[in-house]
Amino acid sequence: MPPLFQILAASAAGGRRGRLLLPNQTVETPVFMPVGTQGTVKAVPQDTLESLGVEIILGNTYHLYLRPGHEPIRRMGGLHRFISWPRAILTDSGGFQVFSLNALRKVTADGVQFRSHLDGSSHFFTPEHSIDVQIALGADIVMAFDECTEYPATRDRAEESLRLTVAWAERSISHFRRVPPVPRTWGPGSDPTQSESGPRTQSLFGIVQGGMYRDLRRQCAKRLVEMDFDGYAIGGLSVGEPRELTLEMISEVLPLLPKDKPRYVMGVGYPDEIELYARMGVDMMDCVLPTRAARHALLFTSEGRLNIKNKQFAEDQSPPDPACQCPVCRRYSRAYLRHLMNAGEPLSATLNSIHNLAYYLAIMSRVRESLAADSIPAATDSKV
Amino acid sequence: MPPLFQILAASAAGGRRGRLLLPNQTVETPVFMPVGTQGTVKAVPQDTLESLGVEIILGNTYHLYLRPGHEPIRRMGGLHRFISWPRAILTDSGGFQVFSLNALRKVTADGVQFRSHLDGSSHFFTPEHSIDVQIALGADIVMAFDECTEYPATRDRAEESLRLTVAWAERSISHFRRVPPVPRTWGPGSDPTQSESGPRTQSLFGIVQGGMYRDLRRQCAKRLVEMDFDGYAIGGLSVGEPRELTLEMISEVLPLLPKDKPRYVMGVGYPDEIELYARMGVDMMDCVLPTRAARHALLFTSEGRLNIKNKQFAEDQSPPDPACQCPVCRRYSRAYLRHLMNAGEPLSATLNSIHNLAYYLAIMSRVRESLAADSIPAATDSKV
Repeated sequence: MPPLFQILAASAAGGRRGRLLLPNQTVETPVFMPVGTQGTVKAVPQDTLESLGVEIILGNTYHLYLRPGHEPIRRMGGLHRFISWPRAILTDSGGFQVFSLNALRKVTADGVQFRSHLDGSSHFFTPEHSIDVQIALGADIVMAFDECTEYPATRDRAEESLRLTVAWAERSISHFRRVPPVPRTWGPGSDPTQSESGPRTQSLFGIVQGGMYRDLRRQCAKRLVEMDFDGYAIGGLSVGEPRELTLEMISEVLPLLPKDKPRYVMGVGYPDEIELYARMGVDMMDCVLPTRAARHALLFTSEGRLNIKNKQFAEDQSPPDPACQCPVCRRYSRAYLRHLMNAGEPLSATLNSIHNLAYYLAIMSRVRESLAADSIPAATDSKV
Repeated sequence: MPPLFQILAASAAGGRRGRLLLPNQTVETPVFMPVGTQGTVKAVPQDTLESLGVEIILGNTYHLYLRPGHEPIRRMGGLHRFISWPRAILTDSGGFQVFSLNALRKVTADGVQFRSHLDGSSHFFTPEHSIDVQIALGADIVMAFDECTEYPATRDRAEESLRLTVAWAERSISHFRRVPPVPRTWGPGSDPTQSESGPRTQSLFGIVQGGMYRDLRRQCAKRLVEMDFDGYAIGGLSVGEPRELTLEMISEVLPLLPKDKPRYVMGVGYPDEIELYARMGVDMMDCVLPTRAARHALLFTSEGRLNIKNKQFAEDQSPPDPACQCPVCRRYSRAYLRHLMNAGEPLSATLNSIHNLAYYLAIMSRVRESLAADSIPAATDSKV
């Protein structure tokens, strides 16, 4: 198999300009991945995502498992084909949603019992099951099943949670290596007749937990690196902790991860955060913030955050962000976006989301350019 | 001023292949006009409407008057500019919404008192006020203020309503002719410095009422034709009457309208209806049905109506309509549209609406082609 990750340039601060070589799509990194919870980035059509330059989106295993179900999706040729998205997809493990949507979940050494938020039905997720679901979905990048440690958590609780995450990571990777690959039936180069014994084109990432304890984070990272995942995520952040702690945990973990593998911080963040983390050496990030904020009238702009419902925009004919080149800023005014929001029009969510996503993507594009320009001669960094 | 309407061909059955020559847009007729109630065709971005070939949309005077207000829109350069729609716009008079959204409206000889459905505030609409609002919005086609007769209505009630509509039509047209035109500040050829005494580029249509009484409809048509409007609409249909009555009223009125002017049936209809009426000589129609049905899971297809929520589509990978060339049918499956609807995803309304609109537009496109092909040599019909 070709390498998953190439580093093209690196900065003194540790930032990396790289490339994820996924089956159907080369993803330029650092990358921000829009979240497509239920097989759609909320309110934004796929062709718009393509024209914005989105190369990879995230799908939520928990949601897709419950509805429409991973087996129907597998029978229909996988998630790419089901949602008509030929570019790359990363699926999370379901662990975070079990954690955030289920007050009544029951965690055992073997896995997590939870109730569907849709119909109250009872389900049991094990590491093996999470991997099976993600393989059935046909994700390009599969995440190990972890337990997301809540915040705040006592040291005892964080240690116990860490033990589970490490044990589940081991079970995730050995199951992933054991299960035959699903033949690809979508996208360019797909071959429905492809032998099931061919090389797996899916990659598996481990997730570093450890709460807000630096030594636990280090311990977790060390154990996961020994297991030799294709990439490493830092999870359990953006769960309510102050931003300084988020930064502290990322700073603690990054140096322990292999330089030649992609690093992914899950669930972040605000525009200044994603820029900062990318410059520190984080290659991948995802967050619902740009699309969720958009649906609640919050626009990110070069002039700061706008609450587009504000009366001051009632007759403001300037674009949402005069410095932005996105299709929304080129065509519509603040006054019109305010009207759509106030009138409860569905177009409001669509236009606001397109702008916020474009704003996030533009940040990452600028970071990539600057990393390429600022790169230091670093032979060890520029090769895999 | 150049003529508003050109007839290019006519069929033996009375159908006309024509052209509306509006200030910024030539509209090929017969035309179906999507409804953009609050300055947006619900859930469909403007660039998508353009790529579907939409040449004219309808705006609702009642809604835009209440929110964001016609004065703010006028100050911002008119509705075209406010919503970024450079093609044509027709506004209704507000009469129908006052009728359908206000149980407590109070009709006097002078106008209608009603309460806002948004905040309960009290408003009074006269013919003059409706015309002023539509002129402020900058509509290419302005509708006379009418009273929509409810169904069923006694003959006495229909006669009384007819008297109001005729009196209000007279007041509408004389006010329209008196008020100086609003300078166009949007679109190609616009000139913000244009003198206010230049020729009016807005057109005014009268609305034929008369309930379901053929002689009252005839009487109303005759009176309106004497007033010499730029075009004529048939209103007060699709208000609950059986379809045969709708057809009867249209058949009764059409022959009485001047052949060289555009004819518009308001608020219709189902796909087979719009095709039938267009073949009979109706040049313009509008209806919320394609977009409203879309939001309620109903898709119009060449195979009949689909309720896309049905379980039978759970793993149906065929396009919504295999015979349709719209961007939704070219990209997405019934299974995916079903999933979006069941999951309550906003993309559902967008994709369903795009397909239904494309389906309606394709019907009209076929009717136009067939009218051009079937046309009879009719010198009197082919000239204005």
